[in-house]
Amino acid sequence: MQDGTNNELLTTPQDYCFGPGEENALLLDCGRKLYEVNLRYETYGQLSPEGDNAVLILHALTGDAHVAGRHNITDRKPGWWDAMVGPGKFIDTEKYFVICSNVIGGCSGSTGPRSIDPATGKLYNLDFPVITISDMVRAQKRLIDHLQIKKLLSVIGGSMGGMQALEWCKLYPEMVKSAVPIATTSQLGPQSIAFNWVGSQAIRSDVNFQDGQYTVNPEHGLATARMLAHITYLSDESMQNKFGRNLQDADRYSFAFKRDFAVESYLEHQGQRFVERFDANSYLYITRATDYYDLANGGELAAALKNVTADFLIVSFSSDWLFTTRQSEVIVKALLANNLNCSFCEIESSYGHDAFLLEVDQLGALIRDFLRNQREEFGK
Amino acid sequence: MQDGTNNELLTTPQDYCFGPGEENALLLDCGRKLYEVNLRYETYGQLSPEGDNAVLILHALTGDAHVAGRHNITDRKPGWWDAMVGPGKFIDTEKYFVICSNVIGGCSGSTGPRSIDPATGKLYNLDFPVITISDMVRAQKRLIDHLQIKKLLSVIGGSMGGMQALEWCKLYPEMVKSAVPIATTSQLGPQSIAFNWVGSQAIRSDVNFQDGQYTVNPEHGLATARMLAHITYLSDESMQNKFGRNLQDADRYSFAFKRDFAVESYLEHQGQRFVERFDANSYLYITRATDYYDLANGGELAAALKNVTADFLIVSFSSDWLFTTRQSEVIVKALLANNLNCSFCEIESSYGHDAFLLEVDQLGALIRDFLRNQREEFGK
Repeated sequence: MQDGTNNELLTTPQDYCFGPGEENALLLDCGRKLYEVNLRYETYGQLSPEGDNAVLILHALTGDAHVAGRHNITDRKPGWWDAMVGPGKFIDTEKYFVICSNVIGGCSGSTGPRSIDPATGKLYNLDFPVITISDMVRAQKRLIDHLQIKKLLSVIGGSMGGMQALEWCKLYPEMVKSAVPIATTSQLGPQSIAFNWVGSQAIRSDVNFQDGQYTVNPEHGLATARMLAHITYLSDESMQNKFGRNLQDADRYSFAFKRDFAVESYLEHQGQRFVERFDANSYLYITRATDYYDLANGGELAAALKNVTADFLIVSFSSDWLFTTRQSEVIVKALLANNLNCSFCEIESSYGHDAFLLEVDQLGALIRDFLRNQREEFGK
Repeated sequence: MQDGTNNELLTTPQDYCFGPGEENALLLDCGRKLYEVNLRYETYGQLSPEGDNAVLILHALTGDAHVAGRHNITDRKPGWWDAMVGPGKFIDTEKYFVICSNVIGGCSGSTGPRSIDPATGKLYNLDFPVITISDMVRAQKRLIDHLQIKKLLSVIGGSMGGMQALEWCKLYPEMVKSAVPIATTSQLGPQSIAFNWVGSQAIRSDVNFQDGQYTVNPEHGLATARMLAHITYLSDESMQNKFGRNLQDADRYSFAFKRDFAVESYLEHQGQRFVERFDANSYLYITRATDYYDLANGGELAAALKNVTADFLIVSFSSDWLFTTRQSEVIVKALLANNLNCSFCEIESSYGHDAFLLEVDQLGALIRDFLRNQREEFGK
């Protein structure tokens, strides 16, 4: 059944560690190497004997490997894309072998700035190398090799997940049959870089940050950064619909510096929830990776994509002002210039950037049909 | 001559203090009273014998009374709207008597949170009452009475200055012949309130803030708030044109958490310049006043404006996403519903909200002609 509610999926996180030896170390874009790299990942479903049903899902900025299902039946909430992925769902784990791993630089099991540096035995903190989206993908490639997958049926992701999907197609064209970059871009514009900069300054100026050597997560700064980012995930229209100028607790202003407006309480709640699950250094590293990301390598996008062979389904959302439809169109044009198969859909939605997590029915139907077609073609 | 470069205007800031006695105190929207209120102001030109040429200019969030000219010929920069106001300029000080005062709550001479509370002999800090845009206008009314102006030819302001202009028309309809609200709104939407909230949290979490009792301006937090606000003053297009993804110092990324991008250096520069001239508590009070501002008093805007008599020139800018053309149109419709004379112009500009300070030629020509027409009608 489509909603899978009676079809509870139980999943177990796994770890894959590589690179203890010099020859296995991960060479990064910055020129440094990472040793003893762990990737936390989850899989759902079974790899087919033909190996034609592997779907790699790439998570967004603050996501993790736990896409779907629950680790224990008592878990309060399922994985972050549970409405999309599972038995009988749009990305049907009875048909596809679904993999998702936490990115390097992350804080949800994979090696990141709060991991132990094997060279020193201490936390990396800001000694962790500045990583890129390509570096994340290079690490994922090791996992896919480890899982003995020769070719992925599809790489799918929204936002920063879409960036990774695109990098997969560029770096490993022979390993990717198709890609679904959703609500994403080929590079951040200056406005997005600017928002990230302000967020990073809020974190760095938190008294607890201690130049990254903190013992207590610098919650004030991290919550401020999250609240700011959260505004960019919503649309003006969705905020109007959800909050307007509604007051939180009373029908008049407090005339004090309290949370008068419902939108303020909402943001505070989002900030507080976030700091419980996310690490400040990790936030700095991952947002910096998105700043640095440039699918075009500083040149012409079409030229940078000349070796790509995948088929594409590109999806944008009408009210997304963080990564706009126009930014998706830039990618579409570069793919078409390379004579690639590319379907493009802008979904009407008032939810802004967050639509990639919320417009599951519209988005899911597109992905379901695209995957079915791709599998029929696989190996031909 | 139009540019006035050979017609140097020298101005002197003045102070008007009112309310030392109970009967002269300023009653505020919050219910509290302010005693011994100082208004720092400047005037330019001469009031005509007919009293038909007084133009009150209202400044924006972080502006001050120093609209035009220099205080000393050695001043590096003139007032904040010097391109607009002066002898022979669009708002011609040879024709009009121009007044501008620093708002209460401000930090540029008028009474605000860093003033001495006469009741305690100490700085108000966060004991200063939370003020509103209406309160600012009520204080200005005292100044206009003091200057023996019976009726203003026009009230003119951009952004928060436009809010004050609109409040003037609502609170003192008999004293306002016309108004020019520019790049403004009848109320902040939840997105703007949210941005202000994040900025205020950055200030309050600065270790130097000390719950407003600081001895050193909490520069980190204030700069962060300013950088964030500054992003909302620019348009995506103007940031693309000005910065793109240009790197600041080199042709490659630092792979450290430095200011790699030109837009980051620009924001840092804006933040640093700002903290040299602006006070953190004042920033909290004035942004809160804009959050609380609601020309419609929580009801129907047209009903709230039913006593207004002024003629209007409303101006918006096409790329302004902070206070959009749509928000100006809301005001226009409410004015027209009250059968008022209202001209409305959306100026094509890529400069975003800042256009009200930058598109001087287009905006100035509109204001010049509007003022001329208004003066011809004055008293008829």
